[in-house]
Amino acid sequence: MPDTIVALATPFGLSAIAKIRVSGALTQSLIRKHFGKENLISHFAFLAHYRAISGEILDQVIVLFFSGERSHTGEDSMEIDCHGNPLIIRLIIEDLQLSGCRIAEPGEFTKRAYLNHKIDLCQAEAVLDIIHATNESALKTSQKQLQGTLSGKIFRLSDDLLLLLVEVESRIDFVEEDLEFDDKILNKLDEILDEIEKIVGSHKFRRTLFHGISVAIVGHPNAGKSSLLNALLNEERVLVSDIPGTTRDFISENIAIDGFLIKIIDTAGLRETDDEVEQLGIKKTIENIYAVDLCLIVVDQNSPLPLEKEVATKLQEKVCILVFNKVDLEKNSLPYFLEKLKIFPQVFVSAKYGTGIDILKSTIVDEIRKNLLMPQEITIAINERHREIFQTVRNLIVSAKNVLENQQPYELCASDLRFALETLGYITGKYNNEEMLGKIFNQFCIGK
Amino acid sequence: MPDTIVALATPFGLSAIAKIRVSGALTQSLIRKHFGKENLISHFAFLAHYRAISGEILDQVIVLFFSGERSHTGEDSMEIDCHGNPLIIRLIIEDLQLSGCRIAEPGEFTKRAYLNHKIDLCQAEAVLDIIHATNESALKTSQKQLQGTLSGKIFRLSDDLLLLLVEVESRIDFVEEDLEFDDKILNKLDEILDEIEKIVGSHKFRRTLFHGISVAIVGHPNAGKSSLLNALLNEERVLVSDIPGTTRDFISENIAIDGFLIKIIDTAGLRETDDEVEQLGIKKTIENIYAVDLCLIVVDQNSPLPLEKEVATKLQEKVCILVFNKVDLEKNSLPYFLEKLKIFPQVFVSAKYGTGIDILKSTIVDEIRKNLLMPQEITIAINERHREIFQTVRNLIVSAKNVLENQQPYELCASDLRFALETLGYITGKYNNEEMLGKIFNQFCIGK
Repeated sequence: MPDTIVALATPFGLSAIAKIRVSGALTQSLIRKHFGKENLISHFAFLAHYRAISGEILDQVIVLFFSGERSHTGEDSMEIDCHGNPLIIRLIIEDLQLSGCRIAEPGEFTKRAYLNHKIDLCQAEAVLDIIHATNESALKTSQKQLQGTLSGKIFRLSDDLLLLLVEVESRIDFVEEDLEFDDKILNKLDEILDEIEKIVGSHKFRRTLFHGISVAIVGHPNAGKSSLLNALLNEERVLVSDIPGTTRDFISENIAIDGFLIKIIDTAGLRETDDEVEQLGIKKTIENIYAVDLCLIVVDQNSPLPLEKEVATKLQEKVCILVFNKVDLEKNSLPYFLEKLKIFPQVFVSAKYGTGIDILKSTIVDEIRKNLLMPQEITIAINERHREIFQTVRNLIVSAKNVLENQQPYELCASDLRFALETLGYITGKYNNEEMLGKIFNQFCIGK
Repeated sequence: MPDTIVALATPFGLSAIAKIRVSGALTQSLIRKHFGKENLISHFAFLAHYRAISGEILDQVIVLFFSGERSHTGEDSMEIDCHGNPLIIRLIIEDLQLSGCRIAEPGEFTKRAYLNHKIDLCQAEAVLDIIHATNESALKTSQKQLQGTLSGKIFRLSDDLLLLLVEVESRIDFVEEDLEFDDKILNKLDEILDEIEKIVGSHKFRRTLFHGISVAIVGHPNAGKSSLLNALLNEERVLVSDIPGTTRDFISENIAIDGFLIKIIDTAGLRETDDEVEQLGIKKTIENIYAVDLCLIVVDQNSPLPLEKEVATKLQEKVCILVFNKVDLEKNSLPYFLEKLKIFPQVFVSAKYGTGIDILKSTIVDEIRKNLLMPQEITIAINERHREIFQTVRNLIVSAKNVLENQQPYELCASDLRFALETLGYITGKYNNEEMLGKIFNQFCIGK
């Protein structure tokens, strides 16, 4: 067993309970030493005093021991639930260091679970995704990955590739060509390529799944952008005033609609102005439009001023909703510039009185589902590391196909397939290297 | 059993693990419903999927069941350790609400432990103190209170009072007076009063124990106050400049020296000035001197300018350390004003080069131990509630003494003693009322 690691597994701060995790060879002797407890039973929690090396009692805690065969890390490990006080946490961790533990590196508990074959690398990455999921779809996808959806797909692909490799290798010693055999192999390679394309295609849903959905509120000054943000937030958090150009800074708030965590950004008003600060604001707004997933174009339907041409052109490329505000007041005819934007869904609201806000919320959700979310039948959303590996695998299979199509020696085809198979093994971590593991586990928090 | 409560017990935020606590009659049926687990054994942890009412799996978790007879709250209860993601926490807690739980009030788990006679009220208050202790002495005192030090003292006092009460009551029917008996009772009452005085005296140590120790750095502009703060912090966090009057705001930082969490406040320079902002700063500095436990008076020993007279007078009443800075440069004679402050310990440092900082730190610790900390032999530090109750008890005992001394009827003495005994019972919670319980448990965090 490697050295014994310790880390706080819960957020640092005042709370009812904090959890300190320990994993490694010293675990049982630490329990004897600090809790005076013998005859440990795996998964059994007991109440104890943490007695420091100095003999002092640091806290009354609940200790949970896991034996190596049945623990998450595959090593003897324990969890110490102490009172949620940063001082106690520090004292216990420092005392455990004196007793021979070292502070765990980020993700080291999960890394040990992987190295001890308790989970594969896709599952380890799923743990990271689970912790960072900010909406239910992302969470569901990650939970499925932890349960082995992606690993299963890769095992099946690997099996298919292995069978093909065996078949191709069995042909190596034959001198005469067998076109029927080649066709069969080519067909199977195409099936595998199709499957890989599908999996690689799931990567594009990752951004909205994991980085959440961002929405910018844009429009000319005094159209009621800040009021709209307030109405969506259902509270008065942004400075609202009748003076055009009030919102110069970028205020962003998170709201949850239908299980989606949405970051809404209020932007500066888009009018021609000599005010330098305001001009900077407009430049920033244009950058925001680039960066977000969805734009709410707010128009005061009683005085629909034109948007800057550059802005209107940008908006046409995005997913947008036209929000006609101030329906409580009288209505004027809309200017030409809006015609071009009329491809987008339109919602009529009064931000001031809250009219139409529910309809706007459901329209936002509809647009997210239609344009930004992955279809129900897709249950994975591979990460960048997976995508890179899959692309290498794809290239190798395309190369294997070329070998067959150009009637080159079967050895070359077998070599491509063998390399593709090995490459695929890096996704689940059948094969690994230190750099790759470092990149993965450094993204974890300490204590995981 | 009362209704079933649920709450997050760990701080809200991203982390490896979060703990959700549940306590009440529904616990076992919730475990069957959401984890499909039967045949529960108290204190055994098991790995399970949390299955929501919708049928969806929300997370892979570790569940720990405690049966009512052996649980902290005295009710069936469970802890769900899920991944530390606010979304998962919210989804699970909302789902448990749908299953019949309600969100726990602050301190409600501890309150139930008290109501079910698992701990007394002093111990419940100790839990609160343990979570808020910011130094090892405060922690030690609270741990002892949780282990029953204060409760033990009160039980002994109650026993003594009860014995006296029985003796006094046994005299009620005697007509003739017994001066010897009276003397015996009076002596015992004095012993009890002595003990109560000692306990009440421990209250004064509570402030520094629980609110931590605060230190202000004061001195004339450019004496090197900010540099000294930096040297103590051992990093460059404060703007340091050679322009006098640089520090106008109050910068406070926490440092730990020898297990004491010390809040150090850097104050504005104390010179005569026409700058309004700076004058405000000086006024604030004088307020700070009032409020802190210890002042570091920083003097540039090469140009020791006088401090304002008002400030110097204030400082004489406080616990101070004279810090002569810039020992790296040549030294001038000290002005008269400093003579008056020479009652305080003196340390010579170069904040710029770090010279003498270790000596300053140990001098700070010495002064804290000497002036601000409770003596080793005192192991309790009662809170305001205890102090108020003890004072009532004291008054009743003094009244009982007066009765005897003035040879009034024994009934009156017995009545005082009976009331004193009952009043004492409010400390451990033998007697309680809703208002008192509300005041105590509302101070807790939710989940405790």
